[in-house]
Amino acid sequence: MSSTWGKNLKISIFGESHGQAIGVTIDGLQPNFPLDMAEIAKYMAKRKPGGDLATPRKEDDLPQILSGVFNGKTTGAPLCAVIYNNNTKSGDYDNVSHQARPGHADYTAYVKYQGANDYRGGGHFSGRLTACLVFAGAVCSQVLKSQGIEVFGHVSSIGGVIDKPFGMQVDEQTKAKLDCAFPVIDDDVCQQMKQVVAHAREQGDSVGGTVECMITGLPAGVGSPMFDGVENKIASIVFGIPAVKGIEFGLGFESAKLLGSQNNDEFFVDEDEVKTKTNNCGGILGGITNGMPVTFKVAFKPTPSIAKIQNTIDFKTNQNTTIQVKGRHDPCIVMRATPVVTAVASIAVLDLLYEI
Amino acid sequence: MSSTWGKNLKISIFGESHGQAIGVTIDGLQPNFPLDMAEIAKYMAKRKPGGDLATPRKEDDLPQILSGVFNGKTTGAPLCAVIYNNNTKSGDYDNVSHQARPGHADYTAYVKYQGANDYRGGGHFSGRLTACLVFAGAVCSQVLKSQGIEVFGHVSSIGGVIDKPFGMQVDEQTKAKLDCAFPVIDDDVCQQMKQVVAHAREQGDSVGGTVECMITGLPAGVGSPMFDGVENKIASIVFGIPAVKGIEFGLGFESAKLLGSQNNDEFFVDEDEVKTKTNNCGGILGGITNGMPVTFKVAFKPTPSIAKIQNTIDFKTNQNTTIQVKGRHDPCIVMRATPVVTAVASIAVLDLLYEI
Amino acid sequence: MSSTWGKNLKISIFGESHGQAIGVTIDGLQPNFPLDMAEIAKYMAKRKPGGDLATPRKEDDLPQILSGVFNGKTTGAPLCAVIYNNNTKSGDYDNVSHQARPGHADYTAYVKYQGANDYRGGGHFSGRLTACLVFAGAVCSQVLKSQGIEVFGHVSSIGGVIDKPFGMQVDEQTKAKLDCAFPVIDDDVCQQMKQVVAHAREQGDSVGGTVECMITGLPAGVGSPMFDGVENKIASIVFGIPAVKGIEFGLGFESAKLLGSQNNDEFFVDEDEVKTKTNNCGGILGGITNGMPVTFKVAFKPTPSIAKIQNTIDFKTNQNTTIQVKGRHDPCIVMRATPVVTAVASIAVLDLLYEI
Amino acid sequence: MSSTWGKNLKISIFGESHGQAIGVTIDGLQPNFPLDMAEIAKYMAKRKPGGDLATPRKEDDLPQILSGVFNGKTTGAPLCAVIYNNNTKSGDYDNVSHQARPGHADYTAYVKYQGANDYRGGGHFSGRLTACLVFAGAVCSQVLKSQGIEVFGHVSSIGGVIDKPFGMQVDEQTKAKLDCAFPVIDDDVCQQMKQVVAHAREQGDSVGGTVECMITGLPAGVGSPMFDGVENKIASIVFGIPAVKGIEFGLGFESAKLLGSQNNDEFFVDEDEVKTKTNNCGGILGGITNGMPVTFKVAFKPTPSIAKIQNTIDFKTNQNTTIQVKGRHDPCIVMRATPVVTAVASIAVLDLLYEI
Repeated sequence: MSSTWGKNLKISIFGESHGQAIGVTIDGLQPNFPLDMAEIAKYMAKRKPGGDLATPRKEDDLPQILSGVFNGKTTGAPLCAVIYNNNTKSGDYDNVSHQARPGHADYTAYVKYQGANDYRGGGHFSGRLTACLVFAGAVCSQVLKSQGIEVFGHVSSIGGVIDKPFGMQVDEQTKAKLDCAFPVIDDDVCQQMKQVVAHAREQGDSVGGTVECMITGLPAGVGSPMFDGVENKIASIVFGIPAVKGIEFGLGFESAKLLGSQNNDEFFVDEDEVKTKTNNCGGILGGITNGMPVTFKVAFKPTPSIAKIQNTIDFKTNQNTTIQVKGRHDPCIVMRATPVVTAVASIAVLDLLYEI
Repeated sequence: MSSTWGKNLKISIFGESHGQAIGVTIDGLQPNFPLDMAEIAKYMAKRKPGGDLATPRKEDDLPQILSGVFNGKTTGAPLCAVIYNNNTKSGDYDNVSHQARPGHADYTAYVKYQGANDYRGGGHFSGRLTACLVFAGAVCSQVLKSQGIEVFGHVSSIGGVIDKPFGMQVDEQTKAKLDCAFPVIDDDVCQQMKQVVAHAREQGDSVGGTVECMITGLPAGVGSPMFDGVENKIASIVFGIPAVKGIEFGLGFESAKLLGSQNNDEFFVDEDEVKTKTNNCGGILGGITNGMPVTFKVAFKPTPSIAKIQNTIDFKTNQNTTIQVKGRHDPCIVMRATPVVTAVASIAVLDLLYEI
Repeated sequence: MSSTWGKNLKISIFGESHGQAIGVTIDGLQPNFPLDMAEIAKYMAKRKPGGDLATPRKEDDLPQILSGVFNGKTTGAPLCAVIYNNNTKSGDYDNVSHQARPGHADYTAYVKYQGANDYRGGGHFSGRLTACLVFAGAVCSQVLKSQGIEVFGHVSSIGGVIDKPFGMQVDEQTKAKLDCAFPVIDDDVCQQMKQVVAHAREQGDSVGGTVECMITGLPAGVGSPMFDGVENKIASIVFGIPAVKGIEFGLGFESAKLLGSQNNDEFFVDEDEVKTKTNNCGGILGGITNGMPVTFKVAFKPTPSIAKIQNTIDFKTNQNTTIQVKGRHDPCIVMRATPVVTAVASIAVLDLLYEI
Repeated sequence: MSSTWGKNLKISIFGESHGQAIGVTIDGLQPNFPLDMAEIAKYMAKRKPGGDLATPRKEDDLPQILSGVFNGKTTGAPLCAVIYNNNTKSGDYDNVSHQARPGHADYTAYVKYQGANDYRGGGHFSGRLTACLVFAGAVCSQVLKSQGIEVFGHVSSIGGVIDKPFGMQVDEQTKAKLDCAFPVIDDDVCQQMKQVVAHAREQGDSVGGTVECMITGLPAGVGSPMFDGVENKIASIVFGIPAVKGIEFGLGFESAKLLGSQNNDEFFVDEDEVKTKTNNCGGILGGITNGMPVTFKVAFKPTPSIAKIQNTIDFKTNQNTTIQVKGRHDPCIVMRATPVVTAVASIAVLDLLYEI
């Protein structure tokens, strides 16, 4: 297993959903940076469960910083933050421990870890672990912001309902709208999405969606071919988020349908600044930023935990059986996943910037 | 820059399109494996330019193995293979050296490398470098095949023309069709694709497309959360292929539109073997293989080199200008990219298998 | 900064001497291994301060395992253990915060971390951090022992007083002697060493020494040229222990004085087992184990904290000054360093074994 | 096997002594640096066999640069250099292929690589591979020199004959003496060393020795605790040189015999510059440079290839036998190893400097 990531900025994640605690160590932060703990808490709150569309499990998720911060500033030594697991309710999971929940890692983890994995609540595979990613990303985003770099995200689709795209930049009005637990650019679309999610919940079902992310303020020249490119870096960490099944930069799969003359972004000089008229490439050419915003979209499959009865196997007896997943589950995790996506993007970008 | 990739199996790529040579060192291959050089040549031939739909640049691309093979078998020491650049024609590129070809890395490389990069033919960014990936992948695919693992690829779309998907497995008839320079499952679709490409070429334009890849024979239990998962590994190397703008596993972005009850793959036991009825997850749950085929799709943007006049900048003078790209270029690189995708998938899978 | 180490088995250390806590995350442990917590506590007790020859600072150093262990066995997920800092007494250090203690990292840390490092008690540079190494090593040593591999250490010298070397193996009588807080093979030598340490303490001075380590039970064929050799691996982690200034394998620097005919270890077959008559190479040829015990010696400089007045600088004012280091310090850390050396050797060996 | 090394500056070595070629790829060099090929050739000449004290095998060892240099400057893309093997004489080795030469990796390589390794001339274990290290180091040393950093080395002992140490700095007179194939500070000592080597050769024997290295011009603040310290980095690459059995920084093993009051280096301010009166710590405190020269010493065992008859085994038949090593061998490799040590030190230092 490898729950460590990064080159010059490294994160090491630990913890299981119903164990003692979850946490993250960030190694490589530059010293002397003043952390705004209130801002971190605010960032983390966006991922928190809550509201009538989310799981009723209440997580305080207040991280305790054990190291790496002294007098309110980073020391340059590894920063470790721990979130203790208080509100766990393992009983819900006891009767399904050898039944493979379809779409979950129960079976694959059982095979890989010879049945020794902490299966309670998904263990190390739980979406709860993303709180560690969000903490680390919140820290990194503050460093980035001090350099004029910002990372934005919105729910770009849920089921078949599609939000407006970011376009060429994030204006102030849009920024304001993103600062909430259900960040959508178009208000009407947001209402429709909520209906889709509510409907899925009523049916004991769940629904997938996509998150669009935009990184502004990056200078041209960040990232390297062939394997340390911006796309490689971001993709390698984004797939660490549970339920992610796809990523595309700029137009992505859409560009595969186009002609070169439609897809190429023409350059022009605007008051000594090099820009492109369109941004189909998502701000990246040859793995390197071109100075335009970096954009990408991430596909989340529907939460596999659904209340409907499903066919499956008991992987201990190797027999066919059926399962009805109980417990507290989100009918849609895309809105809570949005700060996770911006968080890992922030981590990836800071690691790229820490490269000479 | 980092043109090295891998953990237990490492590749290190070098070379520029019009320099002395390109090549790759593969470090970590197990010893005593007999290489079939004819098979490697056959694999590499699929990537070779040729035919009336491809660039007229003739590449022999015969790799010379400098180390790591003794008496026809791998020695366990690093295997280095070099392809010398013989048929280069730099003159074509001289007059555009400070004009940013839209969609190319000319400008971003200039910024990053302070103008010192070898710009001729795209230098280290050239698609020619993929010959090294294909060589390395051809080697790895032989090791995999000896373990019953096979990696298949086909052109799943060009422009708006879409091939049949692999489905749940690759039958013998399909296998036979893939063994060519334009691997498409449906013959009629193949004809339509050829027309689309021919049309683009006639217009001095280019067209994008997608490649679908399927890996069969992998046991359950390969890959690890959170960052050494099958998806993270494959994505991190796939984005090393020039022109890739997206990757999705299983249903990918399609699954983001579905309900959980539609997307979940139900397990069942078939003569003691665990299988799923559908394979929407692409054979991966929690980053770990579930024993079903691993499937993913890669989006390639249209070749940015087009004959049409485009607006751009001269990045030396920082002035607006126009460009008409000359030289020998493919109107569509998707068919040639197919063996590159299967090659990097083979490298990624072997690295995953080399982990205890 | 990088306080992470390892390839297939990775450790990530965090914490500062007088911060909230210190700890370590071990990523990559195989699942299903039953941990003997009493044995771990026993291993860690050897490093604990105590006795009349050591610092009076009382450390409970009882690690709390936050993750990676379930029902007493490793889960395969990262194992994080934390030791909270309870008995800290920062006041002792307040008045020296800008005076560079000679032999310490005060000045170099100040330069590197722009004065933001947690200087209290040495911060992240403190010898206290070695408790994390010992915990991780204690875990790894149990895994090794289950495979018949044992790692032994003794104080091979303090000042000019030299213990008997391990020789070709560790017999039962010797093993019994090593199981204490001052592990020395020869009892008389042990008494002399104690006198040397007591004398140094009385003088307000300190004294250096060496630790010899022997690893038995390793099969031939472990380790790889050129940079993943047994020596490279062990050296790269041993220099993570504060105060280490040298390492030598087998005869080491002594072999540099010899003729080839004296130094070469002749092979012979002993009941089908390949052995060497001598073990001057320390069980390693070409970076790879030869089946004989791996042996190495580590040089520790004398504790830089001494009570004598020393010339130094105030690095804030850049003025010459004098310093008299106060606080609680060991006159000799070599006996406490012995379990640290065997611990990091255990980590390094397990990482090597986790490579195919 | 891993013949790759480095983090931000990476080298990947390939080749076998009697194969097609040996070579190295350097990945991560900053662009736009003008390489002085004549200086590189001069650096490499110091490692070349020759003279009446060395092996009569004539190596041209002229590296051909295949990539990464354009118009005489680094491009920023990987720099690959190849040295073709022309003057190989495999016949000498044919009859000993299953007899383990004592002190060599024949047996350990056979076990590890299942007999598939290229055994001719030591294959990938051959000292010839150090030519690749010297090439890479020569490149790095030019970059360092442009920043005022210089790396010096001398033969500090052969057998029992000991040269004067570098002391606190390298004066001009000493520099001049080091610029030769047998770099020794004291002329008389040099003569004695030559006699010792000549005597060993006459006896069909060999002799070991040590190399001292000094790095000047490094600012304070380079390197990081715990595992990316200057000592960890240098040690991890130095043990990649065949025949190295030990390394010590500053006083090293000598400091283990001292009192703290003897070993501590007192700081003082000299015209606003921070210095230490002595340099027992070898310019490193807490893994970080303190601004004084970095010094270390490396122990080389005597060349294991000797003409004397030795007892050994045939590892194919697992029988005891005797061996008389034929072929062309150096009675002492320490003088040729000196540029190898300075080369790897240059690589390590540049990698450290490429870290933010």
